[in-house]
Amino acid sequence: MGHGGGGQLSAELVEHLFAPAFGGDVLAELGDSATVTLGGARLAFSTDSYVVRPLFFPGGSIGDLAVNGTVNDLAMMGATPAYLSCGFILEEGVELATVGRVAEALGAAARAAGVVVATGDTKVVDAGHGDGIFINTAGIGLIPDGIDIRPRRAAPGDVVIVSGPIGEHGVAIMSVREGLEFGVEIVSDTAPLASLVQAMLNVCRDLHVLRDPTRGGLATSLNEIASAAGVGITLRERALPVPDSVANACAFLGLDPLYVANEGKLVAFVPPEHADEVLAAMRAHPRGRGAVAIGTCTTDHPGMVVASTGLGGTRVVDMPLGEQLPRIC
Amino acid sequence: MGHGGGGQLSAELVEHLFAPAFGGDVLAELGDSATVTLGGARLAFSTDSYVVRPLFFPGGSIGDLAVNGTVNDLAMMGATPAYLSCGFILEEGVELATVGRVAEALGAAARAAGVVVATGDTKVVDAGHGDGIFINTAGIGLIPDGIDIRPRRAAPGDVVIVSGPIGEHGVAIMSVREGLEFGVEIVSDTAPLASLVQAMLNVCRDLHVLRDPTRGGLATSLNEIASAAGVGITLRERALPVPDSVANACAFLGLDPLYVANEGKLVAFVPPEHADEVLAAMRAHPRGRGAVAIGTCTTDHPGMVVASTGLGGTRVVDMPLGEQLPRIC
Repeated sequence: MGHGGGGQLSAELVEHLFAPAFGGDVLAELGDSATVTLGGARLAFSTDSYVVRPLFFPGGSIGDLAVNGTVNDLAMMGATPAYLSCGFILEEGVELATVGRVAEALGAAARAAGVVVATGDTKVVDAGHGDGIFINTAGIGLIPDGIDIRPRRAAPGDVVIVSGPIGEHGVAIMSVREGLEFGVEIVSDTAPLASLVQAMLNVCRDLHVLRDPTRGGLATSLNEIASAAGVGITLRERALPVPDSVANACAFLGLDPLYVANEGKLVAFVPPEHADEVLAAMRAHPRGRGAVAIGTCTTDHPGMVVASTGLGGTRVVDMPLGEQLPRIC
Repeated sequence: MGHGGGGQLSAELVEHLFAPAFGGDVLAELGDSATVTLGGARLAFSTDSYVVRPLFFPGGSIGDLAVNGTVNDLAMMGATPAYLSCGFILEEGVELATVGRVAEALGAAARAAGVVVATGDTKVVDAGHGDGIFINTAGIGLIPDGIDIRPRRAAPGDVVIVSGPIGEHGVAIMSVREGLEFGVEIVSDTAPLASLVQAMLNVCRDLHVLRDPTRGGLATSLNEIASAAGVGITLRERALPVPDSVANACAFLGLDPLYVANEGKLVAFVPPEHADEVLAAMRAHPRGRGAVAIGTCTTDHPGMVVASTGLGGTRVVDMPLGEQLPRIC
């Protein structure tokens, strides 16, 4: 299961198995999307499969995730998401009413994100050889001229900004899966982020890196960026926006919110001279109201993420091996 | 299982459940790929999930199918396939060596087809909730100016050409799955068809329809085209290229080769004045050596496919309800 968790084991699978087998250097950039050129158009192209359990959870469903997850991967390249493909793998015996509810949710999420489901496919596997509904979506979007957003562009001095509270999606899934209740219901943050990115680009075309910290949480995204760009990242632990409800649930379950999945948040690396205006633009957008600067990019400790704790010490924020909680997206 | 067979039940699922839920009219065209425009480029965009059992079979593997199936869907729009996405859903416990062999096959097939695997994703599901390896690929390709190939363009008078022997893929899968042997080993025809299409377009830019008759076989593809274009199709049953080995296996198993899947064949609807040169161009290409004209498009019996039998009679070639053999791709 660890190989699907988005952590170090996943990275090794890509690096040592898939990348050499597939060849080519497009995959080597390892952004959330690939950047490809076709007929003179510069496109972002991305795919994700969705195997979340349960299919419906507080705040959304597999249908929402299947749209927002892929749309956000495109948005993280500065692209305007345009078209999605959609492949369903149904397990024999899944109720058509359930498939219908998921399809409705997916359609509504696509309309909300401003993308068109252009092509699709359905396969059915024998009972006991699937799990209700798996969905794959792939997406394409246009990258405007002059935009160059990718992990390797993280540069010393960059301000690291997160768009709002972290850990909600992972905790929401866990609470419903394990039948836990934490007083306040914690709701998944699943949401499309393309319009937030647009608002940021309107004040700064030179965003260096964008990433949506899904599987593996913020810690994984930051480690991937530090490693890709060969820079260090220093976080102020006290600045991390962890809602009390998430903090309490994580304390109870022995989890670290830095490693818990988000499905409607982004982390941005912004040149310091533009940080204030980008932060202001984010806070003026419904999806970025809780945006805060959480740290900076540095030449110290290249490839590593370090958090300064409230007590004046520092700790290394490692890349996780697998995922604390499997199948959260 | 019938809903995944590519027949009438699949069509009803798309028409009554997915299409209304997703909205939009791109999906309504119901070609093998969608045609979309992005940044001034006219693109074909297509997706398929692959759930074939077993993963390896005579003539290929799920890795070959995952490339060739999607590449061929793009080629059926006259597009030049360029980039693939690739999503793996692994079942916990599947051997990494097996994943590696599949990835190698997929990479080799991509190189053979001239496409780049640009982006990917891996998910892992618990043992007993998947089936070894499922793969989804989506593909994008550029449609050259002046090309307009789609089911609705089938026109009375069009000559219907198939690129070679039918039924090999389905029978190959069945023989290995059921442990049957038919004297001669029957090998899947899985192959990329984009260069064959290119050779055809070189002699006739005005191909009306192209389709690769996969799930549901030739009968399903022809019924879909007849229904989309509101034309009738008349086949000469004796002209159908059914290899003896396939005919014998089908006779033994009670199957009709017209409904058995192919993974490296296409059917073309060609204006009569160009039929001879297209046929010659196909026969000069390694993937089209066995090309034959099998029938014509007519104003009689619109929406229906009719075969004239060897005995001078006719029979209706229906749309199948489901698939004779599940999970063949």
